[in-house]
Amino acid sequence: MRTSTPSVAGRPRADLHATVFAATLRTVHDLGYAGATMDRIATAAGVAKTTLYRRWPSKGALIVDCLLDAFGPVPLDGGRDEIMASAIHWIAAKIGEPGVGAAFAGVFSDAVNDPALREILATRLQEPYRLALQDALGEPEQRVLLFIDVVTGTLLHRMGMTGEPMADSDLAALIEMVRLTFR
Amino acid sequence: MRTSTPSVAGRPRADLHATVFAATLRTVHDLGYAGATMDRIATAAGVAKTTLYRRWPSKGALIVDCLLDAFGPVPLDGGRDEIMASAIHWIAAKIGEPGVGAAFAGVFSDAVNDPALREILATRLQEPYRLALQDALGEPEQRVLLFIDVVTGTLLHRMGMTGEPMADSDLAALIEMVRLTFR
Repeated sequence: MRTSTPSVAGRPRADLHATVFAATLRTVHDLGYAGATMDRIATAAGVAKTTLYRRWPSKGALIVDCLLDAFGPVPLDGGRDEIMASAIHWIAAKIGEPGVGAAFAGVFSDAVNDPALREILATRLQEPYRLALQDALGEPEQRVLLFIDVVTGTLLHRMGMTGEPMADSDLAALIEMVRLTFR
Repeated sequence: MRTSTPSVAGRPRADLHATVFAATLRTVHDLGYAGATMDRIATAAGVAKTTLYRRWPSKGALIVDCLLDAFGPVPLDGGRDEIMASAIHWIAAKIGEPGVGAAFAGVFSDAVNDPALREILATRLQEPYRLALQDALGEPEQRVLLFIDVVTGTLLHRMGMTGEPMADSDLAALIEMVRLTFR
């Protein structure tokens, strides 16, 4: 009798994914995005490199799945202003978690010169959030894409410049900027 | 009789810098930020790696000087709205030049985990523009830093997601957003 499908590494898939994602964020946090090679992530997770490559064809694909797991769903309660403010607080807090900001900034920087990775980023990472926000805000696609660029870009730029999440007073200014614009 | 100080590589310093900066952008454009190692940049520039390291102690320091050279001064003519709009058009055009967007996004991503590089970015790259904008806009430091985060972050996020500079209609929306906020 089988209660779960054992993974190639002899562990259930969910356990393996949780182990690999935690090891990925830890490695990126300790060594930076560039230093966190598939080799080092595999070592940190205690799995073979082939086990990683069987599930994720590239480091970019692994990072995107790791970010999706770290982010979870965007909170969408309340009216338009509340939705935008809580989405901003949510992604700012996520970007402040150890390894997440560095992984997020790193995968974008890699994507500038990598069309295949851009495709993964746009469809796998961005699209679910874009669709949820379009639906909740009743805004057309182009406006929601600009909202995502402004919020995520601003937070990542601040993180790259200061190494820290954005302070609450600046977060409030960003929310006010978005409130004035998307109304 | 000496008409200019010969560099270590036997060329005047300004020539050497121009050669190295062009080779840096070309290499980043062709191989991406991570692939553009100091070794490969030296080879593309036709200089010894030691010549690079004598002037730039790290790849981050070289990229920052290369970006400063590519950007030049921010245009600051006209009233507040004109200054903000022309600054946005200026940096959007620069980010769209081959290699510049990738170098800019890459150095930010590296900086998330590198305090020494963040210091170079904040003081050497950002500070001259921040001071010029503070003076021209009559805004306090914190507001100008937010302006820089929003504009640069948004443009780089779009570049990472699409591989292309922002379209004119979105650029107009970004300018309107900034105009509504910084008034």
